[in-house]
Amino acid sequence: MGTERIETDLIGSLPIPRDALYGVHTRRAELNFNVSGLRLKDFPELVQSMAMVKKAAALANAELALLPVEKASAISEACDDLIELKGVDENFPIDMMQGGAGTSTNMNVNEVVTNLALLKLGANVGDYAKLHPNDDVNLSQSTNDVYPTALRLTILRACDGLIASQVGLRDAFRAKASEYATALKVGRTQLQDAVPMTAGQEFEAFAELIDEDIIQLQSASELLKEVNLGGSAIGTSINVPPGFSGAACVHLTQISRIHVIPARNLIEATSDAGGFVSFSSVLKRIAVKLTKICNDLRLLSSGPRGGLGEIRLPPVQVGSSIMPGKVNPVIPEMMNQIGFQVIGNDLTVTLAASAGQLQLNAMEPVMVLNILQSMRMLTRGMDIFKQRCIDGIEVDVDRCKALLDQSLVLATPLAMLIGYSTAAYLSRKALAEKRELRQVVEEEGILARGQIDELFEDSAEFGNTSLSSSA
Amino acid sequence: MGTERIETDLIGSLPIPRDALYGVHTRRAELNFNVSGLRLKDFPELVQSMAMVKKAAALANAELALLPVEKASAISEACDDLIELKGVDENFPIDMMQGGAGTSTNMNVNEVVTNLALLKLGANVGDYAKLHPNDDVNLSQSTNDVYPTALRLTILRACDGLIASQVGLRDAFRAKASEYATALKVGRTQLQDAVPMTAGQEFEAFAELIDEDIIQLQSASELLKEVNLGGSAIGTSINVPPGFSGAACVHLTQISRIHVIPARNLIEATSDAGGFVSFSSVLKRIAVKLTKICNDLRLLSSGPRGGLGEIRLPPVQVGSSIMPGKVNPVIPEMMNQIGFQVIGNDLTVTLAASAGQLQLNAMEPVMVLNILQSMRMLTRGMDIFKQRCIDGIEVDVDRCKALLDQSLVLATPLAMLIGYSTAAYLSRKALAEKRELRQVVEEEGILARGQIDELFEDSAEFGNTSLSSSA
Amino acid sequence: MGTERIETDLIGSLPIPRDALYGVHTRRAELNFNVSGLRLKDFPELVQSMAMVKKAAALANAELALLPVEKASAISEACDDLIELKGVDENFPIDMMQGGAGTSTNMNVNEVVTNLALLKLGANVGDYAKLHPNDDVNLSQSTNDVYPTALRLTILRACDGLIASQVGLRDAFRAKASEYATALKVGRTQLQDAVPMTAGQEFEAFAELIDEDIIQLQSASELLKEVNLGGSAIGTSINVPPGFSGAACVHLTQISRIHVIPARNLIEATSDAGGFVSFSSVLKRIAVKLTKICNDLRLLSSGPRGGLGEIRLPPVQVGSSIMPGKVNPVIPEMMNQIGFQVIGNDLTVTLAASAGQLQLNAMEPVMVLNILQSMRMLTRGMDIFKQRCIDGIEVDVDRCKALLDQSLVLATPLAMLIGYSTAAYLSRKALAEKRELRQVVEEEGILARGQIDELFEDSAEFGNTSLSSSA
Amino acid sequence: MGTERIETDLIGSLPIPRDALYGVHTRRAELNFNVSGLRLKDFPELVQSMAMVKKAAALANAELALLPVEKASAISEACDDLIELKGVDENFPIDMMQGGAGTSTNMNVNEVVTNLALLKLGANVGDYAKLHPNDDVNLSQSTNDVYPTALRLTILRACDGLIASQVGLRDAFRAKASEYATALKVGRTQLQDAVPMTAGQEFEAFAELIDEDIIQLQSASELLKEVNLGGSAIGTSINVPPGFSGAACVHLTQISRIHVIPARNLIEATSDAGGFVSFSSVLKRIAVKLTKICNDLRLLSSGPRGGLGEIRLPPVQVGSSIMPGKVNPVIPEMMNQIGFQVIGNDLTVTLAASAGQLQLNAMEPVMVLNILQSMRMLTRGMDIFKQRCIDGIEVDVDRCKALLDQSLVLATPLAMLIGYSTAAYLSRKALAEKRELRQVVEEEGILARGQIDELFEDSAEFGNTSLSSSA
Repeated sequence: MGTERIETDLIGSLPIPRDALYGVHTRRAELNFNVSGLRLKDFPELVQSMAMVKKAAALANAELALLPVEKASAISEACDDLIELKGVDENFPIDMMQGGAGTSTNMNVNEVVTNLALLKLGANVGDYAKLHPNDDVNLSQSTNDVYPTALRLTILRACDGLIASQVGLRDAFRAKASEYATALKVGRTQLQDAVPMTAGQEFEAFAELIDEDIIQLQSASELLKEVNLGGSAIGTSINVPPGFSGAACVHLTQISRIHVIPARNLIEATSDAGGFVSFSSVLKRIAVKLTKICNDLRLLSSGPRGGLGEIRLPPVQVGSSIMPGKVNPVIPEMMNQIGFQVIGNDLTVTLAASAGQLQLNAMEPVMVLNILQSMRMLTRGMDIFKQRCIDGIEVDVDRCKALLDQSLVLATPLAMLIGYSTAAYLSRKALAEKRELRQVVEEEGILARGQIDELFEDSAEFGNTSLSSSA
Repeated sequence: MGTERIETDLIGSLPIPRDALYGVHTRRAELNFNVSGLRLKDFPELVQSMAMVKKAAALANAELALLPVEKASAISEACDDLIELKGVDENFPIDMMQGGAGTSTNMNVNEVVTNLALLKLGANVGDYAKLHPNDDVNLSQSTNDVYPTALRLTILRACDGLIASQVGLRDAFRAKASEYATALKVGRTQLQDAVPMTAGQEFEAFAELIDEDIIQLQSASELLKEVNLGGSAIGTSINVPPGFSGAACVHLTQISRIHVIPARNLIEATSDAGGFVSFSSVLKRIAVKLTKICNDLRLLSSGPRGGLGEIRLPPVQVGSSIMPGKVNPVIPEMMNQIGFQVIGNDLTVTLAASAGQLQLNAMEPVMVLNILQSMRMLTRGMDIFKQRCIDGIEVDVDRCKALLDQSLVLATPLAMLIGYSTAAYLSRKALAEKRELRQVVEEEGILARGQIDELFEDSAEFGNTSLSSSA
Repeated sequence: MGTERIETDLIGSLPIPRDALYGVHTRRAELNFNVSGLRLKDFPELVQSMAMVKKAAALANAELALLPVEKASAISEACDDLIELKGVDENFPIDMMQGGAGTSTNMNVNEVVTNLALLKLGANVGDYAKLHPNDDVNLSQSTNDVYPTALRLTILRACDGLIASQVGLRDAFRAKASEYATALKVGRTQLQDAVPMTAGQEFEAFAELIDEDIIQLQSASELLKEVNLGGSAIGTSINVPPGFSGAACVHLTQISRIHVIPARNLIEATSDAGGFVSFSSVLKRIAVKLTKICNDLRLLSSGPRGGLGEIRLPPVQVGSSIMPGKVNPVIPEMMNQIGFQVIGNDLTVTLAASAGQLQLNAMEPVMVLNILQSMRMLTRGMDIFKQRCIDGIEVDVDRCKALLDQSLVLATPLAMLIGYSTAAYLSRKALAEKRELRQVVEEEGILARGQIDELFEDSAEFGNTSLSSSA
Repeated sequence: MGTERIETDLIGSLPIPRDALYGVHTRRAELNFNVSGLRLKDFPELVQSMAMVKKAAALANAELALLPVEKASAISEACDDLIELKGVDENFPIDMMQGGAGTSTNMNVNEVVTNLALLKLGANVGDYAKLHPNDDVNLSQSTNDVYPTALRLTILRACDGLIASQVGLRDAFRAKASEYATALKVGRTQLQDAVPMTAGQEFEAFAELIDEDIIQLQSASELLKEVNLGGSAIGTSINVPPGFSGAACVHLTQISRIHVIPARNLIEATSDAGGFVSFSSVLKRIAVKLTKICNDLRLLSSGPRGGLGEIRLPPVQVGSSIMPGKVNPVIPEMMNQIGFQVIGNDLTVTLAASAGQLQLNAMEPVMVLNILQSMRMLTRGMDIFKQRCIDGIEVDVDRCKALLDQSLVLATPLAMLIGYSTAAYLSRKALAEKRELRQVVEEEGILARGQIDELFEDSAEFGNTSLSSSA
């Protein structure tokens, strides 16, 4: 009795660890693809989704009398084990960066489900005469419909967490908007002083940015709910009985609680990666927005004395190995880098999507790897960003007020009274002479004293109330 | 009387060609930005949109009694001239690649509209005491709301043409799908022979790819209908009277026949480039799909004798300066390159969108340049692609049939009868021995003669009828 | 006598404007490719390079006795016309975004050179029996060697101007470095106050950034000097006589004053786009550096009162249509956008380079279009950047000094005296209590008065002299 | 006695696992950055490089009499432990995707080295009064010089393995070139039959592609040998004694066997990421070439019966879960996906490099993560590609010959005899009539029988011998 068993396929024979639940295909793939260090087991959510699809297929096959109930039950129970993450860590060693359009992932699942089911049936691991990875567990299926379906399902299931993080972050900004609703400050365009606003308005704009992304994400995820399950190898449904596609989708919906439906053209759906492109584009959009927000936060908190210094981020770690007392905006910097990674990952998805040929896109593994990694980093990142940064932001209200008071931003409302050209002249004069705008206005005698008072005393109005006025 | 007039701004004085309708700001900008060779006049659709916005603003200002009717009428008529493209070629010399967040574009329009209106009022060009570019034509507006509004409008107006081209291309593929609905051929996955299908199904999948893109484009264009008109410099509506935003949007909708509405948060809307990111992502998606389609067409038409040779593209020009008789797939190659350009342009848009700071994104000029160029190339390209390539495609039905007959693709339905492993064995045996699969199957005696006949005679069924069977 | 002549090729017959110097191939290509609005005539430098190659080939053919001297002379003179840009504007109407791997560009040149030469020989335009575009002007050549050679030559010739602009910009920064060599200021890392430096050091670092790019550009341009001239259709030199490649390169070197040599493997060189990828990567690198520099300049000049305000950029135009007196950093903003475009263009080049297949890369037209546009924008942009921005920068020395004096940056040298932890404690204490670091240090009584004086009075040393000390 | 010890910094106190060799900074960073699942310990080569730098600094500090010999020795021995990878797995838990510009990585190393050294000195873990992470281990250093130096070192050390893989792959192609030096086949441009060549020439071109990349990689790695060690926080060498930079570089060269030298401008070098941009660009170039090669191999091996079928890749795993006997080009597909990832990663590096601000680029962590991952995947991938794909390629010489014989590629040499136009006519006639070119030529009677024989019998010459003829 050795520690290995032998399995054979059309390539030849190969030793497998005696009690391994995977088989010859998995073992070959493990050897063929070993490049990224990121393995199926590191993405257990994908294994779960595959098991859900396998279970749905088994139940549909049983209903259509293609698979004996005993086999279907054993397969279904085996899938439940994987859905509960039992044995995932030991049995899914294949690299995520794999050739073969997902066949290795599908066969890894087929083999593990088969052997788990064989054990449940009282048979031995590897006794494929009793239950076969291809003829039984993969019945009515092809990698080319099962794998993309599971990819979509995995992404859809991960959306909940991502949206929860977005909601948390949005609400954190909303809370700050409320807290600082009346804190007047200089609004800036092109990094130059523009017109007054409040710190609360600035935070509310961040909240709104994120809110719009949530809507976009939900919209893009709808596209992924159309699956090509039942399309078989190229979407022509070869070897798939009538009724299978619909039945399998119903079961999959019940199992996953994600409402999946068959695509209207299974041939197109088999080779098309448009859903991934669109979804990844939304991740990129989220990254673009977070980049902007983090850049702004780092800018507004620059200092402590040689920068804008309008806000203070909560200190979460010492900033320097050599500069004592320095504290840096490390959480926004982390988010910036996540943003760069997500944008780079989106390019990888784009390239892979462009590489589809004829009836299949063989590059789906790298697409899902990048999408899942981006989602993971965005989700975790936004949670940390909220908790360790946004929640603790303090606005330096005095500093904001001081910068506003010494600025020339009231030249704009002034122009309503005296015309653009004259206002421009006065503004540049004040700047050149390093004086207050009010002083210069008074000196010129263009406006009555009352008007001047009104203009400069009501500055608080401009930022705070004007939004409603434009409605 | 010289050939120049002098205009002055806070920077100083500058000579302007005497009868030029533009003024000092335009002239400075022309000198400051001269890098790409692409000028405002090369994108007259943008000038039109700016004029539409200016007209809408003038009408709203008149309604709100901010602008005398006489001035508003003159401005409105001047805008009509530009909308009809009168004088656009001579008066919009500024480079599209401009700093200043569109201020130069806005001021160029302000100046030209002012001078056109002055002429209509019987005054002289440059007599800004009678009508002022800032105080009158730009009244209640800021570049930061006018310019993004006009950008959105320009893109939305260009969508019609783009969608028409998509529809034309889609229908051309549909026509081919219908023409070759029964032409059986080998379906291929990973460039390896897979299972049977028809040439019609292949074309129909292309049509479906494009059809889905049309839906995505329409969906993304909806995002652009929310404008920040009335938000003024930073979205706080400073210097904008109550009611202006709504009134101006109503007028703009009437003038442009595009239904625009005020954004729900004008501050966020002023700095946000999310709508451009999403729209550009859809252009990228279209490019990804066209890349895939063109790659497939070039592959399927490879030959004429040393390639797949399943289809023939219409010859549109001689292919080589040295190889007589060679004809190349030049139209798909052009489309491939357009695809690469659109994907590169999308990155430029992404970078520019990420560079927004605080209350504004100053990088909108490069965004709109890239989006408009991508739309232009896609629109023109798809029209040519349809007319000079797709419409004339011929399928070599005999060649398709011959490749199918000599293939081993019936191993898949065979597996339904004898199991995967045995079918695999027979398929590899046929390949190794360079024989027909049918011969090998017969020789093995596993199936009855009737079954064999049925399997191989019904091959025509697999591609053609299976789609319905899976419903 | 009509206004058109008829030309015929294997596709059929086509009317050509009677006196047009181009022929049927050009006319077909003009109709086939009309998408970008950017035509060969808009890149006359490419037509020049093609003419140089044609002339070199004619001279080599004559030397090898393949072409009669009379024909060679006429061809050579015709090429000289094009090199002098005579007739380029009227006769090169083909879109730069063309399929066919440059065949249309090559044939456009072949046709125009042929007809120009026919006129010089006293024959009629279109009398190809006397001189033939393929058999004579294209003799011993293929598009696949002529076109890539001309592309390389065009880029190399454009390098001089680009490098001159880099040198100008670098020297402008050097001049500023010298001007402000002693202006002390706060150095910043992660936008937080770090340790002292001088404004001169900051400018010198910009100069150094650019200087390194110049070296990289020169290095990458070397790769382009290996050409595949003489390789013919696929690098096997079919139809090319022995000795042609070497002779043609010698002539081309003389004509262009660029030292070109035959690639060591002509087959690889024919399909390889690596030289373009590497060159475009350097353009991207230049864009990355300029992006960083412009971001810094916009940050340092932020204000005028609510920002860092350490430097002032020269005002080159009015900044706002609504905010009087506002001046924006429009030139750096233009450069930022050029940077985004160049990075996007580099992606287009990357995609096109990846799309090479077997013995050719058919996507070279879009590569050269993007490289030339990037070079053009960088060259023009840097010239403007130097003249209209850098040359006129003023450092606000007082502001720099004030920010430094109120900062806590001397905590770092303080740590050398009292240890990191104690220095950190004192620094945070000063910050929390809004006091000067010196005050807090004195109060704690850890250092002797002399040491304190030395530390704070010598702050000027830290930025200014320390560079030499580390050598 | 609890299981934890307490450490304190300016943020406050934190419990640390009692025997952990890391300290409070590491623990905070572990909590702050937990997003990617990729930790420092997963990149032990980076920890090694950091330890090498720390050791070099300790030796230099001892030489300059800044650090007592006893402390320097203990630090040096502690570094040796890490260089030998002792304790790396347990003590480096921080995420690679970290804010803070590498400060956390530096402090993690400082803390672990300190505690390892304390143990060697007979003291307790955490007894920083005896040896301090900042004051002793980090003496004369800043994260901002130590970290970039270690990054460069890590990349340089990884280059050896990458180049070895390139050499292996190149030589594998060379072996195939030699094996099939005389196997004639159709050369193809634009996927259309062009002119003859040999399979050996095709493989040799692949070898040459890779060979050129090796040179580029070596060239780009030279740029990384300039380090900013001794520049301290911003390159002004604050707190760094004269002589340190040179001495530390000498030690580092001895320890690492990589010849590093101080950059000529330490201020520029501190913020500059140009070396990473250029290096990553070369990785992208490698990816572009591999993409092209893999696309070609998949195309040439398409079939087995419905494709080009000129070469056979060795079967390494079963290709389909549903199509028996199918074998797919899984290894090239894996390489294609690695290529897409590397190109995406390069964009991430570009974005991060563009985000440098003022005296530092805080985004280096994401740059090094992407560069190291790309190098790892390319290195491992190319090894597998060589062993499991290229080494086992077989050319189907008969198939190549058959495709060549039935082609029309001899129209090109024919044109030398009868002119381009007539040759084009004959070629198209043969194609239209589905006949051999030779038949059509004979029928037309244009050439003498001897010439025809010579042309068609010497076809073997065209591919095989022409290269030398052009020299």
